Amino acid sequence: MNVANMKPEEVRAMIRRNEWIKPTSGMANGYTQANLVILRKDLAFEFLLFCQRNPKPCPVLDVTDPGSPIPQLVAPGADLRTDLPKFRIYYHGELVEEVTDIVKFWEDDMVAFLLGCSFTFESVMLNNEIPVRHIEEDRNVAMYKTNIPCVKAGRFEGPMVVSMRPIPEKDVVRAVQVTSRFPAVHGAPVHIGNPEAIGIRNICRPDFGDPVPIKEGEIPVFWACGVTPQVVAMQVKPDLMITHSPGHMFITDLRNEQFGVL
Amino acid sequence: MNVANMKPEEVRAMIRRNEWIKPTSGMANGYTQANLVILRKDLAFEFLLFCQRNPKPCPVLDVTDPGSPIPQLVAPGADLRTDLPKFRIYYHGELVEEVTDIVKFWEDDMVAFLLGCSFTFESVMLNNEIPVRHIEEDRNVAMYKTNIPCVKAGRFEGPMVVSMRPIPEKDVVRAVQVTSRFPAVHGAPVHIGNPEAIGIRNICRPDFGDPVPIKEGEIPVFWACGVTPQVVAMQVKPDLMITHSPGHMFITDLRNEQFGVL
Repeated sequence: MNVANMKPEEVRAMIRRNEWIKPTSGMANGYTQANLVILRKDLAFEFLLFCQRNPKPCPVLDVTDPGSPIPQLVAPGADLRTDLPKFRIYYHGELVEEVTDIVKFWEDDMVAFLLGCSFTFESVMLNNEIPVRHIEEDRNVAMYKTNIPCVKAGRFEGPMVVSMRPIPEKDVVRAVQVTSRFPAVHGAPVHIGNPEAIGIRNICRPDFGDPVPIKEGEIPVFWACGVTPQVVAMQVKPDLMITHSPGHMFITDLRNEQFGVL
Repeated sequence: MNVANMKPEEVRAMIRRNEWIKPTSGMANGYTQANLVILRKDLAFEFLLFCQRNPKPCPVLDVTDPGSPIPQLVAPGADLRTDLPKFRIYYHGELVEEVTDIVKFWEDDMVAFLLGCSFTFESVMLNNEIPVRHIEEDRNVAMYKTNIPCVKAGRFEGPMVVSMRPIPEKDVVRAVQVTSRFPAVHGAPVHIGNPEAIGIRNICRPDFGDPVPIKEGEIPVFWACGVTPQVVAMQVKPDLMITHSPGHMFITDLRNEQFGVL
């Protein structure tokens, strides 16, 4: 089964039938995958404000109408209650369960947010022959808490989380250029070169994900990371929050290139 | 008095003292001006969703916390109740009053939206020596209702309003390029060339603003227009809505170039 060449609706149908309960990386190549955050309406406005004020870590691709599980903008034929391989259920900020659909958790006042994910800009980097170390090494990307404050919105506040990729010196300018084209999926880096300047003490010890080696002639480059909104939302301890499980993303009908601003 | 070279905070202080009750065009050159829409919180989430789904006509620059008149992101020293030369008060979608400050209208649950405005990309065009006809002729820009539907959000729906600028054939490509850099202020055009294709019957009869001549060798180019959210909001007939008066904009602390994505 060649999942790389399947269409998004085919992948989603397979996931809906519980025939694929694995990470989505490498599926429906060229199509944009997204992070999922679901909150009740009473928190949704503050969370949307938070995303609007912090577009680099929280690039909004779609927000559903309250009560509707249909992402009208990015996949009108999909259902967010069933079309991701795995979900996480949090009560009061505590992970209590991991499930393959959320039909029985869905409520009439829920609002689902789909946020851009770094898979998109990594595929753009690879298309430009810029190496992506954690893909080469088949690990999770290295992620760090920083001292860069997000802009507060209501109860939502906290530091930005970044992901790091070691980039060969000769490719750093190109990496800035090609990722800048995609503000809807984190866009340009937030920092180049000096981890301490953004509050990272030990580059070998990421706060999330796996460490990757930085080779001779490479520079650590940092991008705003989609883990940020989840970490921040967790601190608010919402009565109920639902997210995708890490790596088990939602696959949209839109191609990566359609998010290029130029 | 050289208002073009004044700093934004100087201009706003003058406006706050009611010493300038005129349009803001040409003031604090190089700094971004913004449209204002104020709604009560019960409509604010839907309106923010509408903007998020329709970023070309409704590019959000800042949204205040409910009850706060301070635009923290774009001008933390400003007060939106006093720092615009003229405001319009609408009850149930009807214009009832035009005032120079809204201190007595301000309520604890109000949310203010600052939306990008075409002044910014016009200055970018001028810097690239692309002529802007209505500026040359000292008229208001020509605006038209189209058959392009906005994406609905709750009670907010309606067609996109566009502004038209006649561009010399040789400059059309460059006009697309330079405005694409600024998605926060309407960005790239939505249509080039054929008014009928987007539902405009008579190019000589704009729905808002003034007609401008299209000369030999020029092509009409259409951009999404910031009048769209006001027209759409008016149809919802909110109990109370406050906006800037046309041309009497809010001047932010940010320079136009700071909104360039690349």
